[in-house]
Amino acid sequence: MTDAATLIRAKRDGHRLADDDIWWLFEAYARHEVADEQMSALLMAIYFRGLDGAELRTWTAAMIASGDRLDLSSIRRPTVDKHSTGGVGDKVSLILAPLVASCGAAVPQLSGRGLGHTGGTLDKLESIPGFRAALTPAETLAVLASAGCVICAAGSGLAPADRRLYALRDVTGTVESVPLIASSIMSKKIAEGTSALVLDVKVGTGAFMKSQDQARELAETMVALGQEHQVRTTALLTAMDVPLGRAVGNAVEVAEAVAALHGDGPADLMEVTLALARQMLALAGLDADPAAAVADGRALAAYRAMVRAQGGDPDAPLPRAAHTQVLPAPASGWLTGLDALKVGTAAWRLGAGRARKEDAVSAAAGVICLAKPGDRVQAGQPLLELRADDHERFGPAWAALEGAIAISEDAPPPRLSPVIEYISPK
Amino acid sequence: MTDAATLIRAKRDGHRLADDDIWWLFEAYARHEVADEQMSALLMAIYFRGLDGAELRTWTAAMIASGDRLDLSSIRRPTVDKHSTGGVGDKVSLILAPLVASCGAAVPQLSGRGLGHTGGTLDKLESIPGFRAALTPAETLAVLASAGCVICAAGSGLAPADRRLYALRDVTGTVESVPLIASSIMSKKIAEGTSALVLDVKVGTGAFMKSQDQARELAETMVALGQEHQVRTTALLTAMDVPLGRAVGNAVEVAEAVAALHGDGPADLMEVTLALARQMLALAGLDADPAAAVADGRALAAYRAMVRAQGGDPDAPLPRAAHTQVLPAPASGWLTGLDALKVGTAAWRLGAGRARKEDAVSAAAGVICLAKPGDRVQAGQPLLELRADDHERFGPAWAALEGAIAISEDAPPPRLSPVIEYISPK
Repeated sequence: MTDAATLIRAKRDGHRLADDDIWWLFEAYARHEVADEQMSALLMAIYFRGLDGAELRTWTAAMIASGDRLDLSSIRRPTVDKHSTGGVGDKVSLILAPLVASCGAAVPQLSGRGLGHTGGTLDKLESIPGFRAALTPAETLAVLASAGCVICAAGSGLAPADRRLYALRDVTGTVESVPLIASSIMSKKIAEGTSALVLDVKVGTGAFMKSQDQARELAETMVALGQEHQVRTTALLTAMDVPLGRAVGNAVEVAEAVAALHGDGPADLMEVTLALARQMLALAGLDADPAAAVADGRALAAYRAMVRAQGGDPDAPLPRAAHTQVLPAPASGWLTGLDALKVGTAAWRLGAGRARKEDAVSAAAGVICLAKPGDRVQAGQPLLELRADDHERFGPAWAALEGAIAISEDAPPPRLSPVIEYISPK
Repeated sequence: MTDAATLIRAKRDGHRLADDDIWWLFEAYARHEVADEQMSALLMAIYFRGLDGAELRTWTAAMIASGDRLDLSSIRRPTVDKHSTGGVGDKVSLILAPLVASCGAAVPQLSGRGLGHTGGTLDKLESIPGFRAALTPAETLAVLASAGCVICAAGSGLAPADRRLYALRDVTGTVESVPLIASSIMSKKIAEGTSALVLDVKVGTGAFMKSQDQARELAETMVALGQEHQVRTTALLTAMDVPLGRAVGNAVEVAEAVAALHGDGPADLMEVTLALARQMLALAGLDADPAAAVADGRALAAYRAMVRAQGGDPDAPLPRAAHTQVLPAPASGWLTGLDALKVGTAAWRLGAGRARKEDAVSAAAGVICLAKPGDRVQAGQPLLELRADDHERFGPAWAALEGAIAISEDAPPPRLSPVIEYISPK
């Protein structure tokens, strides 16, 4: 028998938590015998001391065991999912899930809401008139069976301990911990029941992980956790110094994703999407060319089927913002920088994101990047278009964009692929 | 404007907290806008990162400002108090407060309850029939004016933020932090209104601080805090590897203190008491010989006056335990070790202390050390006498004493003074 204070002190002093201690902790926390103030002190001790591989495996298993697992055994196709650690303009899921589905896999993409400067996939899809992100487990399975993919909210039954822990971490300065991030993501993905998973770990100013070393550590930790829980898992590190594609917001990202499914996607967005699709298809054991599935319209058809199956009208006009303002280029030259964090924060302040989880988001608000780094620009040429429902949103958004743009007289080096590194199980 | 999560992250990442941030924190905590789970995460971050001198001064000031300060301006004598960090058999206050009062100072000793293996001064005094430890501020001043000293509970109005923080630290593994200990002790002592203060920082197995370096750091931190808040403060480091004196418990310690006031105190107890008394008298600007005040009975008279003024009968028989058991010496030789922590834990398990703050304590329970290190003992000779109201208490107490005794064939080195080091303001 242990008690919470003993367990906290042990971790604080750099000792390992035994498997039994971790199981006891989560069971006592579920019974509210371990209080939130004790859990938050432990989380801070873990921030400083970490969790080793064995502790993390048990910690994650206990979070999964705190709730239900989705049973995908009725799905006849190989299941494979993708998770992104969050970036600016990251509408990849909207293209990728139907694309991989159209190649023969089943993609059960259970997602969270956006918080802070990185948008949420569900918020984006909900800008489509009629689209429902909240599905019952039976509805989730039905959409997955009929459309080959589903993008919906992870129900409260999956890893409820993670839900409580995440809310606690958010207000106690304990978000930025590799083992806590890894167990939070992987507990939900493993509980979702997918057989295989590709992780898109973003690196750069607009990402959670600012350095490639941090990102690699997180990716390797999650890949190991997936393997240990019998989920075939690989990861890509992809660049997030600049927004992905041109649109940042909700409806504007849906529009860009639909254009991409029509074969008209920005190069960086398509590179990331196709690299992830190839990984997913390989893990699913499917020999298919995802570029062909875009070119011949199969991916678009799967997207439309999914949107319809979730109550949305893929042909309905998307919401448009009441107001727009434009940032002109302050000088002529080469655009060399477009800071992802600042653009993401501007879009958030325009109404595309939420500050607190109970806030509503604006479907129409966002930022359109009219030029991207590497482009030659003329002084006065529009670089960014800001959209909002409400005029008062522009001031804070402009403030966020201070220093977001860099223009140089020298041509920048050639653009590198946004796909930086592949991480496979060891 | 700041918010709790930002402030926690700043400390977590090793940054200083600004004065304004600390004031904001305590005000928001008092309004329950900063939650306990946020405060506990911050406390854990402080455990790892510490507080520098300026942060600690403000932190302590904010804790004092959270409540009232006792106004001792009506007391005509110089005020001086003592605080001990807690040891086993530490009945020094019972002798020292009346002793220093009898030399012309006023000693306003506001104390807490014991928790864990170190007993509480109030618990000890409450074994005297009729004694009241809970006094109103007006009663406190009246006893102090009439008897020259008062030993009572620090009311809930003094540093209430410390009360909440201490309860939180106790369950979140954040007790053992020098700045948090120092601010907790000093906020209460400064709020109590004393002009001068001597700290008895215990070092050794039975103390909170296990090493002399730790103890010195704590002492220096508290001395500096006192000076910064206009309380003349010095400290002694005293040994706590062996129980102080022979009695460990409540009534048994009162009896030993009374014997000491009659001039019949154990050598180690008297050395610590007289060293502290000399420091207190020096800080109070009084030129008096405390040994003479014991010898001529003035100290005993002051003790009796204080007990009576607080409702107690100094002549009433003290409670006696229903059951006693004895530990005989397992071999002949020199007693070289008598572990303070183990003896203190045994006394606690016999009923002298409490595990939770709502527990009652036994007045009569405790341990009498019939021999002390340096004594020559014969096999079979009684070494310890255990006392309890309840037979079931003995088993756990004997378990705590496993390995508490060391007997050697070689004579131990001569006993050193328990007063190890003097710490003055820098």
